[in-house]
Amino acid sequence: METPNLDFLFYPESVAVIGASNVPGKIGNAIMRSITLRYDGKVYAVNVRGGEIEVNGKKFQVYKSIHEIPDEIDVAVIAVPAKFVPDVIDDCGKKGVKAAVIISAGFKEAGRTDLEEEIVERAKKWGIRLVGPNCLGVTNLENGFDCNFNPPERQARPPFGKVAFMSQSGAFGAAILDWAAREKIGMSKFISLGNMADLDESDFMAYLGDDPKTGVITGYIEGVKDGRKFFNTAKEVTLKKPVVILKSGRTEAGAKAAASHTGSLAGAYKIYQAAFEQAGVLEARSMRQLFNYAKALAMQSPAKGNRVAIVTNGGGAGVMMSDGLLERGLKLAELSEKTRERFKKDIEEGKLPHHMSYRNPIDVIGDAPSSRYEIAMRYALEDENVDLLVVISLFQSPALDEGIVEAMERMKAYGKPIVFVAPGGDYPHKMARNIELKGVPVYETVEDGVDAVYALVRYGEWLRENGEL
Amino acid sequence: METPNLDFLFYPESVAVIGASNVPGKIGNAIMRSITLRYDGKVYAVNVRGGEIEVNGKKFQVYKSIHEIPDEIDVAVIAVPAKFVPDVIDDCGKKGVKAAVIISAGFKEAGRTDLEEEIVERAKKWGIRLVGPNCLGVTNLENGFDCNFNPPERQARPPFGKVAFMSQSGAFGAAILDWAAREKIGMSKFISLGNMADLDESDFMAYLGDDPKTGVITGYIEGVKDGRKFFNTAKEVTLKKPVVILKSGRTEAGAKAAASHTGSLAGAYKIYQAAFEQAGVLEARSMRQLFNYAKALAMQSPAKGNRVAIVTNGGGAGVMMSDGLLERGLKLAELSEKTRERFKKDIEEGKLPHHMSYRNPIDVIGDAPSSRYEIAMRYALEDENVDLLVVISLFQSPALDEGIVEAMERMKAYGKPIVFVAPGGDYPHKMARNIELKGVPVYETVEDGVDAVYALVRYGEWLRENGEL
Repeated sequence: METPNLDFLFYPESVAVIGASNVPGKIGNAIMRSITLRYDGKVYAVNVRGGEIEVNGKKFQVYKSIHEIPDEIDVAVIAVPAKFVPDVIDDCGKKGVKAAVIISAGFKEAGRTDLEEEIVERAKKWGIRLVGPNCLGVTNLENGFDCNFNPPERQARPPFGKVAFMSQSGAFGAAILDWAAREKIGMSKFISLGNMADLDESDFMAYLGDDPKTGVITGYIEGVKDGRKFFNTAKEVTLKKPVVILKSGRTEAGAKAAASHTGSLAGAYKIYQAAFEQAGVLEARSMRQLFNYAKALAMQSPAKGNRVAIVTNGGGAGVMMSDGLLERGLKLAELSEKTRERFKKDIEEGKLPHHMSYRNPIDVIGDAPSSRYEIAMRYALEDENVDLLVVISLFQSPALDEGIVEAMERMKAYGKPIVFVAPGGDYPHKMARNIELKGVPVYETVEDGVDAVYALVRYGEWLRENGEL
Repeated sequence: METPNLDFLFYPESVAVIGASNVPGKIGNAIMRSITLRYDGKVYAVNVRGGEIEVNGKKFQVYKSIHEIPDEIDVAVIAVPAKFVPDVIDDCGKKGVKAAVIISAGFKEAGRTDLEEEIVERAKKWGIRLVGPNCLGVTNLENGFDCNFNPPERQARPPFGKVAFMSQSGAFGAAILDWAAREKIGMSKFISLGNMADLDESDFMAYLGDDPKTGVITGYIEGVKDGRKFFNTAKEVTLKKPVVILKSGRTEAGAKAAASHTGSLAGAYKIYQAAFEQAGVLEARSMRQLFNYAKALAMQSPAKGNRVAIVTNGGGAGVMMSDGLLERGLKLAELSEKTRERFKKDIEEGKLPHHMSYRNPIDVIGDAPSSRYEIAMRYALEDENVDLLVVISLFQSPALDEGIVEAMERMKAYGKPIVFVAPGGDYPHKMARNIELKGVPVYETVEDGVDAVYALVRYGEWLRENGEL
């Protein structure tokens, strides 16, 4: 595995936007808006027309060429018509630019493979690494370096956090950023891969594998550029941190659609599945599953086994969770004799109610306050037969007080992964936020919670198989 | 199939709350709060202690017994300790009460089968129909008749609409109401079935089948009370309106958990599956799927075939939708020669862009305004090879204007079902609301949209197989 050091791409000190425009609605204007919003590096506007640009209340002189800029440039963001890009690459090369993010479309995806080969060749000559062409560029949520031309009122940016996302579809990538912002899922870096004329999904996977700010690598792909490279890279990276991939083009119709979209030969899905399996990549089958996996893996440590305990204040939700876990090949823990005795004794002494069930699922019943939850959670987490705890709270019951938030904080001491499920409306959503601030991931439905457990168990298995856990 | 007329239960003119309490936090107090909030029938409070109760700013005299009430009583809501319930039933009988909603727990679920048999026997003698015991009662979202003791700040109530929901789990039912309120899914009637000592899921299914206010019947069940009755009822009702059931206790562990929850012998899941299939019941496998199905069926007519056209401004989402549909046994429509010619001509004339794809998925590409969507949607809907249209909009692209809302309104004229998918954050959610006000259901993810298509196609097939479509 070769790991390109792409720090200069994500942490540039100075950036030139080539094709910067004064006209609202133009891509070269939108990029200037995005890039000057939070990023505190130096931004230079370039456009053959020259003049001046005002964005986000700041004025920028427009240089007619990159050579006029009285400064070194680390990254060029290119948004000029495709036919001009080869010469712009040469200009960048002469200027000593290290990476170019080519937003412009009109290359391979439009039948102009020749033009795409031309820019690759020129970039190689100058030692410039390329992102794109035909992409939304990169967004570093840490320092605000953001080439994405979708305006913030249409596409919000998520908070800075541990999940990196790379996408072979720009439009879908944009939707994911917008969605993550609404769901308050923290992201580290976003890469719109575009045509991958140079840097591809494996290069970024390798880089993100060493990126200290990234805890989980996620991606949307239609087809990998180089199967062997992907496999070898993934196999090493997954020992360092989890990699979750949503692969589309799984069916014949999907593969056909992919061929006309990114032009990638989607290849036989079974081969992908086998490669994912052997390289320790978690495959997500849907957008929601991708983020269910990612959130769990970003917030919790992988499970040391597959034995799951459930504590719930609703019997029905416990039944659904049992079904969901079993259907995904997971196991309900068999509570130890000692644990059962502890419950039995507390019930006899009146500390716990007679009608509760202390089989697994442990049903603390509808009138449970947080103190009763805490007893049950402790007993479950202290049981050596339990590898992971699922807590289900139906907050519709007024008996359940907000002490549950602090209780979750205390449960972290046991070092076992915990997944929280809180179905319902506004109140559970509010509580979910508070519980997530304590580091425990909360899910809206039982099935989402099942995804989370699955990811933590499967990734734990992968690490154990490879002697890493 | 016998259809009990339960109008007196859902539309009572007068109600007595037996066990009404002045003490906040008590169930008898919470029920008084719920029932007097919107319901404009007459409400009487009953408690052996007498006195006066103030709820929602209104004062109520407390009658020591139902006999003291100087009025006829249609429905009694009973929230007194289990051991008093048999005598209360007799009191209700003498008073001429038609139905009793027994909230009280402590019957069969607590090992007191004898007590449960006792109340059934007494109710039969007086001709009283029973809901429960051990339940959250019924909620009629139309007239506000609401026995549910969860307070509105913990469990919101959804708006009035077409989806009925019945639940063998009270706690899960409460979560569903709360969730539907947040998702703005309109509901007609909610029934918490409890122990089903008398009225069971089949009785309510039959009643809701004839209820003009209910368009879709949904339910959560762990096991049916009478298999033959359920099957015969479902078979008739599904010809009138769709029935969607989430059955839990599918796995061995789930069935065990169900046995200790509702005491229902969950039975072999395969038998349930076969029965659902043969009776035209759509089985949902998760909470979200239940409502994905229900929303589509409530807002759109069933499809006359399984050939789906996709119009999208994002290639990746089109690929994912193709996969999702194929994986569920659905089909991408093959657009007719005539339709392809129409697209071709428009492209040649510059009305549509050269790079768009007019295979199916029809990719109107990222810079599509609503006018371009409209052309593509019309061509797809006018194609005789198309039974259903999926529209995917990635609203992150600023090119897509709000004219799409009115365009969707115009598409209704074609009479073919339409499913809209709009992934992302706050802006797409806002647009989703506006589009749903035009009668087109909108989904947050591709996979949710696939569910919607599946429900419309499968229900259409069921009706056609039975000569009803």
